[in-house]
Amino acid sequence: MKHQSAVAENATHMNGLDVQAAIDTIAAIKADKSLARFQFRARNRWISGGENRSMIRDFYGAGHEDNSRAMTFEFINGEPPVLLGNNEGANPVEFLLHALAGCVTTTFVLHAMARGITIRELSTVLEGDLDLRGLLGLDDTVPPGYEQIHIRMNVKADCTDKDLDDLLAYAQQHSPVCNTVCRPVPVVIERVIT
Amino acid sequence: MKHQSAVAENATHMNGLDVQAAIDTIAAIKADKSLARFQFRARNRWISGGENRSMIRDFYGAGHEDNSRAMTFEFINGEPPVLLGNNEGANPVEFLLHALAGCVTTTFVLHAMARGITIRELSTVLEGDLDLRGLLGLDDTVPPGYEQIHIRMNVKADCTDKDLDDLLAYAQQHSPVCNTVCRPVPVVIERVIT
Repeated sequence: MKHQSAVAENATHMNGLDVQAAIDTIAAIKADKSLARFQFRARNRWISGGENRSMIRDFYGAGHEDNSRAMTFEFINGEPPVLLGNNEGANPVEFLLHALAGCVTTTFVLHAMARGITIRELSTVLEGDLDLRGLLGLDDTVPPGYEQIHIRMNVKADCTDKDLDDLLAYAQQHSPVCNTVCRPVPVVIERVIT
Repeated sequence: MKHQSAVAENATHMNGLDVQAAIDTIAAIKADKSLARFQFRARNRWISGGENRSMIRDFYGAGHEDNSRAMTFEFINGEPPVLLGNNEGANPVEFLLHALAGCVTTTFVLHAMARGITIRELSTVLEGDLDLRGLLGLDDTVPPGYEQIHIRMNVKADCTDKDLDDLLAYAQQHSPVCNTVCRPVPVVIERVIT
């Protein structure tokens, strides 16, 4: 969140974000870094075959348990017939692309605001390649996950192409989901009995 | 997909999966590994602030473009007020947990079938910790993404605890989303003009 001085002092909102709220959040975290600690959560229940459902509502952040959500979000994972399902929902690797698209976009828009750049339009197209032999355990040299993910971003804004390229590189480096994909993040799984 | 001999020959479905279809898929991929190549896709459009929407429908796999989906799946990313949004949807790092939960679950259930294990119930609880200073660019030593993700799985099945622990370790190693998170996966972002 550098370049805050570039934010027009009389702008209450920029790119749909409350500028003063952003400035206040950053000041609070600078004064007490424990406010930056967040824990996000999901609960998932298997239905049958490739269908399962997640419930998402509570999280911890900014020093307290959040209670802002009146309803629980529910999402359905499914699989297409070629992957033994009935298209009950998008599948998990597709939801990962949705998460990645959203995170890069929000990070881009947030840091655009910090730089005083107004975004007019922004859309992305994502493609992720993988080899099913990894999932199936047919070849241990084939990674089960995405080999790579390609994002094409189309953005229109009131700045130069160079400004957009700089901002995009910054957003790529600072997006939490992009960083979780690019960096090896430990996943600890334990079996519990309830 | 080892231990296929353990699948009862007269079982048409196990854990909600079509056993013969799974066997046929594996045989086809063994005969022509190009059938294992998949490309998943998403298109995302920014709305305002932390709100954006993804559309997911087509993908390539098993040697052709899939056309099994009559409708496009649409998902909304949002942010809670503490992150400058209005809870328009779950946020991207939460959708990542949904993707991870679903993928570990489906991988577990699939390989349970391959081992002749009937799953009766399976649920997971996920927690992911992150430090907002990474996203905000306040400290370059703080990674923007999850520090770690913890999954607690509760599973009831007709096998021993040792069988479940072995299966869980195998599912963790072979889940595409888990592997994408645990392994550094390249994300290439380019700006396009349309």
